[in-house]
Amino acid sequence: MSGTDVDSAEVLRVLTAVRERAPLVHCMTNVVVAGFTANVLLAVGASPAMVENAEESAEFAGIADALLVNLGTLSAERSRAMRLAAAAAQAHDKPWVLDPVAVGAMTFRTGLAADLLAHRPAVVRGNASEVLSLAGAAGAGRGVDSTVGAEAAVGTARALAARTGGVVAVSGAVDQVTDGEQLVEVRTGHPLMTRVTGVGCALGALVAACCAVEDDRLLAAVAATTVLTVAAEEAAVLSRGPGSFAVALLDALDALDGPTLDARTRARAAR
Amino acid sequence: MSGTDVDSAEVLRVLTAVRERAPLVHCMTNVVVAGFTANVLLAVGASPAMVENAEESAEFAGIADALLVNLGTLSAERSRAMRLAAAAAQAHDKPWVLDPVAVGAMTFRTGLAADLLAHRPAVVRGNASEVLSLAGAAGAGRGVDSTVGAEAAVGTARALAARTGGVVAVSGAVDQVTDGEQLVEVRTGHPLMTRVTGVGCALGALVAACCAVEDDRLLAAVAATTVLTVAAEEAAVLSRGPGSFAVALLDALDALDGPTLDARTRARAAR
Amino acid sequence: MSGTDVDSAEVLRVLTAVRERAPLVHCMTNVVVAGFTANVLLAVGASPAMVENAEESAEFAGIADALLVNLGTLSAERSRAMRLAAAAAQAHDKPWVLDPVAVGAMTFRTGLAADLLAHRPAVVRGNASEVLSLAGAAGAGRGVDSTVGAEAAVGTARALAARTGGVVAVSGAVDQVTDGEQLVEVRTGHPLMTRVTGVGCALGALVAACCAVEDDRLLAAVAATTVLTVAAEEAAVLSRGPGSFAVALLDALDALDGPTLDARTRARAAR
Repeated sequence: MSGTDVDSAEVLRVLTAVRERAPLVHCMTNVVVAGFTANVLLAVGASPAMVENAEESAEFAGIADALLVNLGTLSAERSRAMRLAAAAAQAHDKPWVLDPVAVGAMTFRTGLAADLLAHRPAVVRGNASEVLSLAGAAGAGRGVDSTVGAEAAVGTARALAARTGGVVAVSGAVDQVTDGEQLVEVRTGHPLMTRVTGVGCALGALVAACCAVEDDRLLAAVAATTVLTVAAEEAAVLSRGPGSFAVALLDALDALDGPTLDARTRARAAR
Repeated sequence: MSGTDVDSAEVLRVLTAVRERAPLVHCMTNVVVAGFTANVLLAVGASPAMVENAEESAEFAGIADALLVNLGTLSAERSRAMRLAAAAAQAHDKPWVLDPVAVGAMTFRTGLAADLLAHRPAVVRGNASEVLSLAGAAGAGRGVDSTVGAEAAVGTARALAARTGGVVAVSGAVDQVTDGEQLVEVRTGHPLMTRVTGVGCALGALVAACCAVEDDRLLAAVAATTVLTVAAEEAAVLSRGPGSFAVALLDALDALDGPTLDARTRARAAR
Repeated sequence: MSGTDVDSAEVLRVLTAVRERAPLVHCMTNVVVAGFTANVLLAVGASPAMVENAEESAEFAGIADALLVNLGTLSAERSRAMRLAAAAAQAHDKPWVLDPVAVGAMTFRTGLAADLLAHRPAVVRGNASEVLSLAGAAGAGRGVDSTVGAEAAVGTARALAARTGGVVAVSGAVDQVTDGEQLVEVRTGHPLMTRVTGVGCALGALVAACCAVEDDRLLAAVAATTVLTVAAEEAAVLSRGPGSFAVALLDALDALDGPTLDARTRARAAR
């Protein structure tokens, strides 16, 4: 059974709420993409803050409007800080997003990610290999890239969402987003997204920002994914390669409006 | 009592000295903005080096021409390294700049910042909430952004400067820079500066670079602020949004000349 | 005795192999340049992954196709993780590249770099001061920049290459690459490369990517250096300053083709 298409009017409503309420997003993310992630959040009107030490992460998770936990460049200290922050987010009923970067490829982070699931992330966002590995299936990941398509992970993603009580978003050429029952397919996007580091990681942060303003987690994850992928299509038009694409993507996120969301979403709708 | 305007000829003299002497600036800054900060320093002709571990920070603070301590992404180890570096800078009579990111919002860093003040930073640079919190007043900060304007912190900034024997620079729509007696208002700048991560943090690094070549700390802080804000005005003209603005800002810092500094400073002078 | 010129057809063969085989490059590099390094690798078609903790670095060094160890922003934990990764790379017969950033300037990293040499890096890449210091000569470095030209380090580089059984690449206006016997001079490049942070560090990562697909380490190092410096010449044509240069460099790496490599290499050949 294939999923439903994106409702661009609902996406615009969530984006507008982010711009108006400027949610404070606590990012625990990897050092490779921290700057780009902050710039993506600023470009949509959210307020990023990176707090990653065990002395402060729980305190700040209680202050912020949403939390992102991205396992990219892990360390023993970061992993302690992440456990504390995820527990604090759960205790304060703040939505949090788990991005299980390279889970499956390495033992240490695979164990950490499994533990973090107990704190019930509002959304898990990863590629197919990561989602399969996180759910205990054979992930077939190598490094940080998936070796299978998003469609191959839909069944596992549904089961994982049912288990966490949240949403699972699987990135790929067509993104698959499910709350365990409904499935939405996000068909917008551009191949240049895979030629710049941190686009997937920034999506995790955008999902957190949208969860801060929208209680329907399925809609929040779909809105974040649509906003980023439509902006990527706009950016690709103005790009000469991956360097100028990354710059144009930030400009496009800032400029994104309803007619653009609507036109690009319609153009990709399943027939 | 309002402050005096910027003297653009003096600013140009400091910028020229940075370009000619290429001061080595020891940066202990956060991982989000480290790359952008290094690029801002390189764009004005300074030589950045990030050394942040407790094994090397004191040794390097004795080698470099100036030190920046930015509390952005703190950790227990970084905080140890910062204490050692600030003490070494003081012992070697090297100017150092304290950027108290998010002080007031979290307990751990608020205590660290208070301790670091004892090593007499040449310049404290922060937003109004951070300066208020650092001085022991109610800061009203949330995350990394200020919730009050720079003008509201002028009295506190003067008192703090008198206490450290240095200068305090409060960033805002109009930047307020004081040595406890004199007050200079820097009126140049552009709203896009708040839409890119690390512009304020890079200003702290620029202040350190200027302190390395100019003993008048009030002038050094005013020069750094004016250079960055005038370059921002130039960059905004060529930008389509926050992504292209960040790129154009580096180009504009590299290209900045006396006539541009003079014209843009005059255009904003208080009447 | 001066070195030989670059063979652009051989360089193109190596670049094509990187694009076709997308080697997984394990990067242990500094936080300042991590994002830019990843983007440079993605722009040439390689697959970067940053894994820097002691819990995972040895495991991942056995999975990846090549390893980069860059000493930029060292810490006690990172240094442990680097020792484990270099040993694992050696044990698994995976090529690894040592970039001895600021060695000579600080005691802690100078000792670490000397120890790492025992694991026989396929290529050492640094500036003249770093290579001199690493070999035990007086380095004359200050901060991260060299105070002497690459030519001054050729004799030392030859001796160091003979000692490690690998290749030593000394960056400068003309890059000097030697395996202890042969010497190749790479004459392409542009002064803007020194005005952007991380260009030299990204070269280390490119060398690792080329070593993953080319067993002739001298050719791999020459190919990486030529690809980056020719792309820099292309990028400079489209740049207004250091900000736009960094963006254009990524675009140029993505677009680089045989005729461009050939024409720019010929134009700089020694006569």
